[in-house]
Amino acid sequence: MLNILLAAMLAQAVPAAATLPSDPVAADWVAVPDDELMVFTLANGHRFTVRLAPRYAPVHVANIRKLARAHWWDAGTSVYRVQDNYVAQWGDATEKKPLVAGVVANPPAEYSHAGPTTLARLSQRDPYAEWAGYSRDGWPLAGNGATEWVPHCYGMVGVARDLAPSTGSGAELYTVIGHSPRALDRNIAMVGRVIDGVEWLSSLPRGTGDLGFYKTDGERSPIVSARLASELPAAERPNFEYRATDNPRFVAWIASRENRAGPFFTVPAGGADICAALPPVRKAP
Amino acid sequence: MLNILLAAMLAQAVPAAATLPSDPVAADWVAVPDDELMVFTLANGHRFTVRLAPRYAPVHVANIRKLARAHWWDAGTSVYRVQDNYVAQWGDATEKKPLVAGVVANPPAEYSHAGPTTLARLSQRDPYAEWAGYSRDGWPLAGNGATEWVPHCYGMVGVARDLAPSTGSGAELYTVIGHSPRALDRNIAMVGRVIDGVEWLSSLPRGTGDLGFYKTDGERSPIVSARLASELPAAERPNFEYRATDNPRFVAWIASRENRAGPFFTVPAGGADICAALPPVRKAP
Repeated sequence: MLNILLAAMLAQAVPAAATLPSDPVAADWVAVPDDELMVFTLANGHRFTVRLAPRYAPVHVANIRKLARAHWWDAGTSVYRVQDNYVAQWGDATEKKPLVAGVVANPPAEYSHAGPTTLARLSQRDPYAEWAGYSRDGWPLAGNGATEWVPHCYGMVGVARDLAPSTGSGAELYTVIGHSPRALDRNIAMVGRVIDGVEWLSSLPRGTGDLGFYKTDGERSPIVSARLASELPAAERPNFEYRATDNPRFVAWIASRENRAGPFFTVPAGGADICAALPPVRKAP
Repeated sequence: MLNILLAAMLAQAVPAAATLPSDPVAADWVAVPDDELMVFTLANGHRFTVRLAPRYAPVHVANIRKLARAHWWDAGTSVYRVQDNYVAQWGDATEKKPLVAGVVANPPAEYSHAGPTTLARLSQRDPYAEWAGYSRDGWPLAGNGATEWVPHCYGMVGVARDLAPSTGSGAELYTVIGHSPRALDRNIAMVGRVIDGVEWLSSLPRGTGDLGFYKTDGERSPIVSARLASELPAAERPNFEYRATDNPRFVAWIASRENRAGPFFTVPAGGADICAALPPVRKAP
């Protein structure tokens, strides 16, 4: 039974056969800029890499870059909340650590932007938006009329905040580790996506306190460093590529996600939601 | 910052104030029948409880009950696959263990049923179905025209299978631990929902083999017993209740899920998908 769901999984992967219209060509894979890549290292040695989204939350992302360059996360921070089917959250659980000069304590509410800017769209609407699709450079987007936003999908990174008018500085971040909580769309600044190592967050023990906060310091997973790729020596720099969406091969890929091929599937869905069809990202070969 | 997302979480909980139209009355909580409750115990002592769905997959669930009564899972079985943002799967990884007399090796494809049978529906369609809603007794349902099925939401339990015409016996089961893979709807028999302890599956280390299978026996989490509640001594029997959906309070609850209240939310979603609005279940007080 080790082949169970094998076909399902293969059908989910980007097709490998060179003959499918949804196959990317080499030029479809584009390097993620170094200053959009940020590597968090936990005390247990595990790492996760975030692609930042400066276009959609410029002031929040500027804060995050300032905090990273100041090595703010390198001492006294941890993953201090893991709530099942919701989020893993990290930063300074004590609230005592001062921010860095130049960090905007309460940025504008960068929760949505003028749209639509998508190049390729899913065929069906979802309950949260009139349409959903993709930016040219590999970001998922959802929108209504002239308003567009980054949806709260699995692995997406948001800025934790208190009640409005707080928008959160960016020092406290979380990522989605369960069914995508789209009700948060347009209510929080989305600043990136965990593109590698999200399993080191999603497999952490769940917190037993309210909302999944750990009850004791000892349960937390300390963070020992957070670095922009542009700060790392070339040899240590992560190299990731997103799949360009401005081509017919990507349009064919969307269709392949909406109606899965392969012998496993006997009834095609006829659609997909944006969080089940996140744009492909890969480590540079 | 410990209050971060606090309001969001409280808004997600079933309202506690006695004055909301979405508040259940005592009679809205109905006991889950003992023969629908099944408790799996792992060697590490952690337990998870599945509510079985005999109405929707009668032959598969009959198999599961036969296997449970024969204590089939009590030796030589384990959680042998954990794939991030997809499923945790358990049973006999070796394929060597014979089934039990009376178990139907390849039941009918119980992947959908005649509908609609929902009593309450969400206001919006989703990309996978014309409508989604709830059975009288707390099951999520999705449907098109006269066909209805149980959707692949977080925590739902499906029967792992090989390629068609295999439908899976029910000896190998999985639960969803990530964004709901609705593309599997109508392609697999859904036999239940993990209503307690899913975190003991979702927080397991991810398998590093293909599709999240563990590469070595030592990585697996052995299962030491699986029992129907009806087999357990009264003192050890789990007691759970589902929330009845055939009342205006539940209709108000749906509306509260589609447009979250509370000071945290500044922009209401105007809708929810069925996997973000799973019917409430609780331990009996």
